[in-house]
Amino acid sequence: MSRNDIRQNMTIAQLVDLALHEDLLLGDVTSDSTIPKELLGKAEIFAKEEIVFAGREVASEVFSRFASIQCDWQVQDGDHLQDRDSVVWLEGSLRELLKAERVALNFLMRLSGIATGAHRITSVLPEGANLKIVDTRKTTPGWRMIEKSAVRAGGAYNHRSNLGDGILIKENHIKSAGSITLAVGGARRSGHHLLKIEVETTTIDEVREALEVRADVIMLDNMNDEQTRQCIELIRATRAETVIEASGNMTAERLPKMNELGVDIVSMGALTHAARSIDLSMKVRSTDVG
Amino acid sequence: MSRNDIRQNMTIAQLVDLALHEDLLLGDVTSDSTIPKELLGKAEIFAKEEIVFAGREVASEVFSRFASIQCDWQVQDGDHLQDRDSVVWLEGSLRELLKAERVALNFLMRLSGIATGAHRITSVLPEGANLKIVDTRKTTPGWRMIEKSAVRAGGAYNHRSNLGDGILIKENHIKSAGSITLAVGGARRSGHHLLKIEVETTTIDEVREALEVRADVIMLDNMNDEQTRQCIELIRATRAETVIEASGNMTAERLPKMNELGVDIVSMGALTHAARSIDLSMKVRSTDVG
Amino acid sequence: MSRNDIRQNMTIAQLVDLALHEDLLLGDVTSDSTIPKELLGKAEIFAKEEIVFAGREVASEVFSRFASIQCDWQVQDGDHLQDRDSVVWLEGSLRELLKAERVALNFLMRLSGIATGAHRITSVLPEGANLKIVDTRKTTPGWRMIEKSAVRAGGAYNHRSNLGDGILIKENHIKSAGSITLAVGGARRSGHHLLKIEVETTTIDEVREALEVRADVIMLDNMNDEQTRQCIELIRATRAETVIEASGNMTAERLPKMNELGVDIVSMGALTHAARSIDLSMKVRSTDVG
Amino acid sequence: MSRNDIRQNMTIAQLVDLALHEDLLLGDVTSDSTIPKELLGKAEIFAKEEIVFAGREVASEVFSRFASIQCDWQVQDGDHLQDRDSVVWLEGSLRELLKAERVALNFLMRLSGIATGAHRITSVLPEGANLKIVDTRKTTPGWRMIEKSAVRAGGAYNHRSNLGDGILIKENHIKSAGSITLAVGGARRSGHHLLKIEVETTTIDEVREALEVRADVIMLDNMNDEQTRQCIELIRATRAETVIEASGNMTAERLPKMNELGVDIVSMGALTHAARSIDLSMKVRSTDVG
Amino acid sequence: MSRNDIRQNMTIAQLVDLALHEDLLLGDVTSDSTIPKELLGKAEIFAKEEIVFAGREVASEVFSRFASIQCDWQVQDGDHLQDRDSVVWLEGSLRELLKAERVALNFLMRLSGIATGAHRITSVLPEGANLKIVDTRKTTPGWRMIEKSAVRAGGAYNHRSNLGDGILIKENHIKSAGSITLAVGGARRSGHHLLKIEVETTTIDEVREALEVRADVIMLDNMNDEQTRQCIELIRATRAETVIEASGNMTAERLPKMNELGVDIVSMGALTHAARSIDLSMKVRSTDVG
Amino acid sequence: MSRNDIRQNMTIAQLVDLALHEDLLLGDVTSDSTIPKELLGKAEIFAKEEIVFAGREVASEVFSRFASIQCDWQVQDGDHLQDRDSVVWLEGSLRELLKAERVALNFLMRLSGIATGAHRITSVLPEGANLKIVDTRKTTPGWRMIEKSAVRAGGAYNHRSNLGDGILIKENHIKSAGSITLAVGGARRSGHHLLKIEVETTTIDEVREALEVRADVIMLDNMNDEQTRQCIELIRATRAETVIEASGNMTAERLPKMNELGVDIVSMGALTHAARSIDLSMKVRSTDVG
Repeated sequence: MSRNDIRQNMTIAQLVDLALHEDLLLGDVTSDSTIPKELLGKAEIFAKEEIVFAGREVASEVFSRFASIQCDWQVQDGDHLQDRDSVVWLEGSLRELLKAERVALNFLMRLSGIATGAHRITSVLPEGANLKIVDTRKTTPGWRMIEKSAVRAGGAYNHRSNLGDGILIKENHIKSAGSITLAVGGARRSGHHLLKIEVETTTIDEVREALEVRADVIMLDNMNDEQTRQCIELIRATRAETVIEASGNMTAERLPKMNELGVDIVSMGALTHAARSIDLSMKVRSTDVG
Repeated sequence: MSRNDIRQNMTIAQLVDLALHEDLLLGDVTSDSTIPKELLGKAEIFAKEEIVFAGREVASEVFSRFASIQCDWQVQDGDHLQDRDSVVWLEGSLRELLKAERVALNFLMRLSGIATGAHRITSVLPEGANLKIVDTRKTTPGWRMIEKSAVRAGGAYNHRSNLGDGILIKENHIKSAGSITLAVGGARRSGHHLLKIEVETTTIDEVREALEVRADVIMLDNMNDEQTRQCIELIRATRAETVIEASGNMTAERLPKMNELGVDIVSMGALTHAARSIDLSMKVRSTDVG
Repeated sequence: MSRNDIRQNMTIAQLVDLALHEDLLLGDVTSDSTIPKELLGKAEIFAKEEIVFAGREVASEVFSRFASIQCDWQVQDGDHLQDRDSVVWLEGSLRELLKAERVALNFLMRLSGIATGAHRITSVLPEGANLKIVDTRKTTPGWRMIEKSAVRAGGAYNHRSNLGDGILIKENHIKSAGSITLAVGGARRSGHHLLKIEVETTTIDEVREALEVRADVIMLDNMNDEQTRQCIELIRATRAETVIEASGNMTAERLPKMNELGVDIVSMGALTHAARSIDLSMKVRSTDVG
Repeated sequence: MSRNDIRQNMTIAQLVDLALHEDLLLGDVTSDSTIPKELLGKAEIFAKEEIVFAGREVASEVFSRFASIQCDWQVQDGDHLQDRDSVVWLEGSLRELLKAERVALNFLMRLSGIATGAHRITSVLPEGANLKIVDTRKTTPGWRMIEKSAVRAGGAYNHRSNLGDGILIKENHIKSAGSITLAVGGARRSGHHLLKIEVETTTIDEVREALEVRADVIMLDNMNDEQTRQCIELIRATRAETVIEASGNMTAERLPKMNELGVDIVSMGALTHAARSIDLSMKVRSTDVG
Repeated sequence: MSRNDIRQNMTIAQLVDLALHEDLLLGDVTSDSTIPKELLGKAEIFAKEEIVFAGREVASEVFSRFASIQCDWQVQDGDHLQDRDSVVWLEGSLRELLKAERVALNFLMRLSGIATGAHRITSVLPEGANLKIVDTRKTTPGWRMIEKSAVRAGGAYNHRSNLGDGILIKENHIKSAGSITLAVGGARRSGHHLLKIEVETTTIDEVREALEVRADVIMLDNMNDEQTRQCIELIRATRAETVIEASGNMTAERLPKMNELGVDIVSMGALTHAARSIDLSMKVRSTDVG
Repeated sequence: MSRNDIRQNMTIAQLVDLALHEDLLLGDVTSDSTIPKELLGKAEIFAKEEIVFAGREVASEVFSRFASIQCDWQVQDGDHLQDRDSVVWLEGSLRELLKAERVALNFLMRLSGIATGAHRITSVLPEGANLKIVDTRKTTPGWRMIEKSAVRAGGAYNHRSNLGDGILIKENHIKSAGSITLAVGGARRSGHHLLKIEVETTTIDEVREALEVRADVIMLDNMNDEQTRQCIELIRATRAETVIEASGNMTAERLPKMNELGVDIVSMGALTHAARSIDLSMKVRSTDVG
């Protein structure tokens, strides 16, 4: 998700519009009344803790709406920063710097928080592990694409983007269709031929049925380690190329075990919905009449 | 922030547009291929932990975009729910219920998380405490108004909404203007007469200068308890009606002390930026051919 | 793509906005000056040739913007109509019926043209043929989703919806990456696990390389029947489950042969970009003062 | 319709937004995973058959949304191209070139198709013919202005743009108003004084009534050559300055006859609704690390 | 311009969005804090002076955004009201009534001001006068269509709506083209056949040239009565059917003279740009718990 | 309200979109047919009467949508101009200059009209007067922010911007709440701590009640000079720091008296709703082939 991608993606451009507008609709009564119009300055955004950085492109989009502001970025998405490391040097009208500050920081703090959390989780896996950690659709409404980009910056991977770019047959679909077999049949007829079919299972019998109808991916939902082991054994013995996803009650602690058991994918909603914003500050470093 | 208010607020309506669109642009290939079009059903959204609820109005707006869905709400914003308590009963096309599910839950989980956190923090104060806990502008870009509404649902209060509905002179403004005296002078000339003027201070000398220029509100920033006590003593002795706000490194534990010291307002960015999403689920409870 | 789906899909709602606006920005000076405001009427839209119908939902959306108009639909998408068969009966203000007429017809004529063409092409295949005919991304800008829906109404299928819900490695990607092997490697690392990987090939050597890197789908581009036969033989002998797509210079006449050769998918841009609008008319059948 | 005009025309800018968004909402998973980010390239769009070109301005608008792409146009709207003639040379990030390709081509193929068709039709008329061939409102919803521009590029002319910039009293208006006389009276009272009044007629009696009320333009609808001849004779004898339009079942073959008979204007919906997309390709011609 | 027309006209719907949003983005802190949520009421909007009313449809659109409000309109656009005459009775949530009040009144006061002014001006003409008074493009940006509708409500007429639905060759065009003759030639080639051609003239020589090239409408710009008389004499003697428009320094006092001289059209920018807002009030008449 | 502020304010950008679109949706048929495409020119906008100028930033935004136009501004908002003084020199494509002309002038004429009117009113006060003249919410829907900026350019001040950035308890709120005391209590609980509370009063008893509940600002509504004097005496004797606003039936003539009586603020809706557009013209000064 680069800034140029943002230009072609109506939804992100609109999110930036909303963000600036909700803070600045009435102007900035404090800055406009206390700071001379012509006063220029330099400001620095820097980390206040150890982080994995994300959000450069959407923050660039924010700054680009302020005519006087020039950015000198010190980092890329995915970079590891120490406390006090510089993120970006900004130069321009002091009024504009202060107007842009909060919106840009609000994006960066949350997105870097997601990247930092994703890094913390994925780093419990041994070097070269087969297991991939992926996100879910439990994202902040309006932020789907930029949060998924932050997940990647932190070293994790993405599950499908929305309800249209992946087929995932869950409990409710199975119940409505009547059976896994019927549901998979429907999906195979309607989905386009570049989409795999994934089936959510909660018992080994359901795994067996999913194998019979040649599901491409089988999700083991909310199973303990032993159940997981048994299902994987069955799958590998039956259709070895099936992709195996585990989900539900996952914590960083369980991940090495999942890797050992041969799980291919673990999906964790917490990557996005439980991310903690990290701390960034902007400080004006010098001022000068333009 | 009621649903009717949403109708008049372009930004919230646009956020709901973005949220639905990012999940449903390509349709729901799973539901549409596995569930018969005419199948109706009832579903329940319920709490999976103890929460203070928020987000009813924006979720109503989400459901209203699905023609077949009827809502029977069991709760209001601010209600306290136990694990398994019902939030809303939904009735309609099963396909539509499954399409609406994730977007609605993503709003409710985050907003109820904010309300629950705000309640946890404010409940450390004794009954009838003078101290008010308020939020900041550290909100999710695009969500300002609905997050501020969730803060209120949790029993906390709001600081200003944006850069235009309150004058808050911070360190950077003082530095740019030359002094507190000059900055307050500028603000008094330009701000409209229904806005008070708040000055951020970090030393007792700054407090003294703010008092001399009759700041309506004085913020004590990042002070320890003893510094806070001294500044309040000075303020009450000089201009007793001045509103006193404390901010910076605030935790729930410090709040009773702040109340005892006579602080009027404590502002905490963590109310929004550090809120934890709470857990809600939707279950299909029955299905029926319409 | 039902009308309710349109409500959640910003792009279709916006297309309808544009369509109505471009015809009615200045009002309808003829109808408003010649027809009394209170005059009601009934009108019928009917086929003027043999067609397969499509476009009901987007036309419903058009009519829904006119407060007085009630629709009594006689057909569903995919229905086969004879010359003079009724499509929909409309009732309402005569002025509004005439204002809505052209925009609604312009949608229906093109979409039904696509469905009719798709039916004509797919009907050359024998009953129960394995071969599926699919569309491409050569659609009318702004119309992607509704044209893909019309293709389905005509009995054909959809290829991916956009550049994000399917991986299709073409000549230019191979050239840029250096080889099929390198390109597939990149795609496997970055694409999410519900997406298959398709490789476009123009020679049997490229087919061989694609098989070696276990491409899920192999496209045989612009090959003649004999080349196609040889490649399929190789594929079936090597990795039988590989999906085989043929593309380029396809005409209805070649399709039975493709089916015999064991091709799974033929993609034809002509389904959308060469569709001929079919002929529909609206006639006012009766008028009455309301 | 130049690119600068597009900047002032909300509807075209929005159409380009929709077009890019529908293809790129989820990014381009193939290009982004197979092509190095920093790889630059040159690409050429060229004709694959003999065409009259149109659509440069809207395609420029598409390319302008990709920051790295520079265009070196080889043609203007209305130029005649041979097979393999160059349309535009593009230079920029290879990823961006591949992302822009399909949307730009989809616009150009359809608009050049309209221009080519319009040229084919208008070229049946002798040099210096009085007869003008014009389009109708049977355009692709959302594309009205750019299709009308393509019609002009092909050498034909435009009828009115929408329901507000021309008065055309049709059968349904006459029926509703009670008579041609009443309808024209209403139009004369309400239309502004820069609009002429046109009346659609199907018999010589209707032509006579239209002449009596001094219609500025008379349309002869669905008449054969002999009927057309008689009506024109009457019109020229009565009010010679009346503009005469013929419409309905028009083919290129009939046009020289219409010109001989003295028809001023022939309107043909087929100019837009029956246009065939022409074939254009984009080829990457060289790649280079930037 | 009826409310239903507004539904099809993106620009008016967007103007209403802007209007509500700019007043209510942050909610209504006064009403929401002082009036109980469930309190219902009836309110009346009434005239506070003698007026010609306009704006019902756009005000209806405003009220329709408030779910609880029901309107009982007492008037139509164009009605003459006395001081204290009722415009509309409103019923609904008291909070919503007070939120809607100012936006609705701001529309009604300006539009009724235009209608009232238009009536005042047009009423100086004798019964049955041939002369029509028309507006210009000097309208409030964003309000073009609703202001033109208000002009009609006041008994005046509309000139063209925008730069596309009428050809008016002014001084600057003539200068750029080289002469009236050249400019009219260009316009005749390019404009569609339902548009007349108007030429602005400032001397009798220019009138003569305009007559020679058969301009459909001739505007006499900034001429005194005697010059006007001479030009009309020339026009009527040469091409009697030419429409004659006079413009520039027009006041109500001059209009009877213009009528006597045989001018067909007088255009006055003052109809819109110099309109005085009239005085309307909303009073809550009763309150009741719902 | 600078041009850069406009970039962050969705509503103003959208208003400019609407304004250009409503005039140029169909192009400019006159300029495009009479003026050669490549013809360049210089044009000047100048005052035709004595004015106080306003609107530079929104007009700059208009011109910025025309790629060829360069602006050389001669004035700032708030400058005093004589008849024939230059406002801006424009250079660019003659077609574009003529397309931009009317929209830009329509903004400038109304906004400069407001500034000129505000100056006329405020200049009746003696040098150094304490009294401030402020506007109201009686602004043109869609124009709130730019009209408030024009008011400041004329030397007057702004009241609150909308229903959310100031608490003003009016007659209807008092009636609904039951009393001034109850209404102020509600407002104090709900409004954020940077907002003052203003109460509208019509009698000295209401003033007394407002003082008892410590209203920050008291509005004396529709009082004569003697009533005003008595109320001020009471206020100054009770809570001297209370801000006093007078409103209703205010004319320029009464303002010196209000100042003498010690009123702090007079609010006048007429500043915006009764502003007269002033006269500006654009003349092409030279033309040249580019």
